[in-house]
Amino acid sequence: MSPHADITGALALERAVRERGRVEGSLVKVDDFLNHQVDPELLDLIGADIAGRWRPERIDLVLTAEASGIPPALTTARHLATPMLYAKKFPHATAERPAFVREVASPTKGTEYRVEVARRLLPPGRRVLVVDDFLSGGRTAEALGEIVEEARCVVVGFAFVIEKSFMEGHDRLVARGWRVDSLVRVTSLTGGLTIDSAPGAP
Amino acid sequence: MSPHADITGALALERAVRERGRVEGSLVKVDDFLNHQVDPELLDLIGADIAGRWRPERIDLVLTAEASGIPPALTTARHLATPMLYAKKFPHATAERPAFVREVASPTKGTEYRVEVARRLLPPGRRVLVVDDFLSGGRTAEALGEIVEEARCVVVGFAFVIEKSFMEGHDRLVARGWRVDSLVRVTSLTGGLTIDSAPGAP
Repeated sequence: MSPHADITGALALERAVRERGRVEGSLVKVDDFLNHQVDPELLDLIGADIAGRWRPERIDLVLTAEASGIPPALTTARHLATPMLYAKKFPHATAERPAFVREVASPTKGTEYRVEVARRLLPPGRRVLVVDDFLSGGRTAEALGEIVEEARCVVVGFAFVIEKSFMEGHDRLVARGWRVDSLVRVTSLTGGLTIDSAPGAP
Repeated sequence: MSPHADITGALALERAVRERGRVEGSLVKVDDFLNHQVDPELLDLIGADIAGRWRPERIDLVLTAEASGIPPALTTARHLATPMLYAKKFPHATAERPAFVREVASPTKGTEYRVEVARRLLPPGRRVLVVDDFLSGGRTAEALGEIVEEARCVVVGFAFVIEKSFMEGHDRLVARGWRVDSLVRVTSLTGGLTIDSAPGAP
């Protein structure tokens, strides 16, 4: 019997964050099951939950950015029966040209990188759901949303596995007129982890 | 009815490479379904096929490197009911310390990068299957194999989605005493694509 059976992805995830996550300064470390070591069964539940919330929106494509967005985007796409497309991040990756390109600043790391998507793979009119593992500053997500709009596709919304609600990312995306939904929200890291899961429609 | 139903991952993959792959110089471009846009259903078949070949070896962990190795490693791990662990690549990624680290030279791109795995996540004695999307030069795979051995784990073998058999990667790994199995082998790019799929046990 699976330890995750009969519970939603959001609840399984909340349990995993509580039991297997670790707080280090302003970081929630979930390397044991989400973004270094990955629990495939939990990711499948996460994908099923996200897919269930967005299925009525007739999604054509799930978009994410390498690398840690790939597992939840892949399982979501599988449950939605759509392709998954991951933006490549430079410097190390090699994207196709012509490409849609955005520069993304990472204030926490003090670095900057490019995200790229081959134009050929994002023809106009697609209804796109952006999926990523974390929403904190929201800059990568915003860049992906801009790429979708530049491609004359529709940003149906953003689905995140974990949202740090005390960071500016949620407001950054909502201010653009985009819908945002996260399976689990970390509302505080002060004095330990405070989280809630958010089952239901976006 | 699924277009992939009732065929193995290797055969579905061979068909996808023939019908949706493109040859550009010495590169086989499979960005439409494997390493930029990803076909989740095909990846599930690929994972099921790899898992079926290696299941008798009692794998404890599937190891890959970000980013393009993640989809086949995740689906393989799901079918083997094991965790999946992906090595982070620097410069842009942030790995945990202490870590197992290897420098990898990429002669084709003229670059060098580090692959890192948190020591905490690779305790001694694990039976590890290394999975990656491509085998060409074999340097990333070799680095992963060295990390597994440094961790005093067992390199059970290497499973690749696509092998370029005219490159040195296969020999590089076999010379280390490691077992190598690939779902599809590209044996020549001269005068068009020559490939064969290799169903069966490694």
